Amino acid sequence: MDNKKPLILITNDDGYRAKGIEALIDSVKELGEVVVVAPDGPRSGMSSAITSLQPLRADLIKNESDYKLYISTGTPVDCIKLGINELAERKPDIVLSGVNHGSNAAVAVIYSGTMGAAIEGAVFKIPSIGFSLLDHDHNADFSFAKKYIRAITEQVLKEGLPSGTCLNVNIPKGGGIKGIRVCRQTSGQWINEFMPSKDGANKQIYWLTGDFANDEPNDDMTDEWALANGYVSVVPVKVDMTNHDHLAVIKAWESII
Amino acid sequence: MDNKKPLILITNDDGYRAKGIEALIDSVKELGEVVVVAPDGPRSGMSSAITSLQPLRADLIKNESDYKLYISTGTPVDCIKLGINELAERKPDIVLSGVNHGSNAAVAVIYSGTMGAAIEGAVFKIPSIGFSLLDHDHNADFSFAKKYIRAITEQVLKEGLPSGTCLNVNIPKGGGIKGIRVCRQTSGQWINEFMPSKDGANKQIYWLTGDFANDEPNDDMTDEWALANGYVSVVPVKVDMTNHDHLAVIKAWESII
Repeated sequence: MDNKKPLILITNDDGYRAKGIEALIDSVKELGEVVVVAPDGPRSGMSSAITSLQPLRADLIKNESDYKLYISTGTPVDCIKLGINELAERKPDIVLSGVNHGSNAAVAVIYSGTMGAAIEGAVFKIPSIGFSLLDHDHNADFSFAKKYIRAITEQVLKEGLPSGTCLNVNIPKGGGIKGIRVCRQTSGQWINEFMPSKDGANKQIYWLTGDFANDEPNDDMTDEWALANGYVSVVPVKVDMTNHDHLAVIKAWESII
Repeated sequence: MDNKKPLILITNDDGYRAKGIEALIDSVKELGEVVVVAPDGPRSGMSSAITSLQPLRADLIKNESDYKLYISTGTPVDCIKLGINELAERKPDIVLSGVNHGSNAAVAVIYSGTMGAAIEGAVFKIPSIGFSLLDHDHNADFSFAKKYIRAITEQVLKEGLPSGTCLNVNIPKGGGIKGIRVCRQTSGQWINEFMPSKDGANKQIYWLTGDFANDEPNDDMTDEWALANGYVSVVPVKVDMTNHDHLAVIKAWESII
């Protein structure tokens, strides 16, 4: 009988020193053996980027019986790939990413390094969750979020997820949470995305910034609605990006040439 | 009456000097006014990464009546954001990305900077296409691919795509193409992903490499099947990554805490 504890592989995109990843480790360490492979510094907005033109490094900086911490020069997805292929002694039972400092709801799932890592776990057919708190402050308060992180992680360890599906979990800032809402990715996009500026030589530069324009602010099935109304949002996210409904519509395009 | 030519915004992830982007521009330049905003060097594997901790730059290096070329320090997605928000004089009618040197079929859609840019066009609700040729050679032969690129681009300009959907078009290497197949993203993952090595100081490093393990090699509805059998593969790709089928299954999780 295999009575090993679950192996929990953890990464994030804010780097191993971030308070968010400490909160995540603290939330789940009693549920199994923890292997962290985290970036050596910030990798926000890295999406599912991978590193092929440079070599990757991974240094083991903590080595306890049920807790190992590697830091890597790679992206969040590189960290998950290194963890699964090279560093963990067995296949992880679950991949966790975060807790991100800032929202990854709506279209941010596309840009997020936190979610890139969770999606990578799903590519490996491992149940995976990305956690984010709606607070960009480096000293954000994660304490009230821990019971939700633990409960959702326990649920996924117990029930699993479909192959190729992970969860995008966002948590409102500052306590007073009403509960959990299972919902879908809000439709919308960022607007006013650049602040034009000048560098020290008076040359034109652009800083990425912007505001989220929600296409459906009143739809209570969306993650943005859940968060605006005090709920933890849980969105199941698929690796398969095919628009299956549109396949039949463009089938006729096979004969355009 | 608005009789302006279509505005075609183009980027890639191999950089503005790549032969693939030249082939793309050459394929479609007669269809409209072309604005290229391309990375100043290789950005392969950048997915939908965005740049927020560094400023972005964009320099206009060719300025003709129906053709402008900007080169940028950003990622492919940054290039599309800069093009739409700051550089193009009106909203593009279509966003094209590529032609990538190498396949972006199956799960590569997740990692690809070429597809990140096409998906970004779809975020802006602009019909968008990512093109890739199954040949990594920097001197790859794109000549036979041009008629397919032009035909698919004309079709999308004429018929459009649903909001939030773009196309992932992959083209087999070396001519002898049998036609176009509309298909779905193949299920599978990369395996044996690292080549461990040593640096000049004899320290451990890892190079990303690997082989694609196809979960469904005999399924003729997949993009990998189409490409293996001599067809151009066309997959409609959605910005909405929600696993809608799984929402009802986990609705009960709202009461776990």
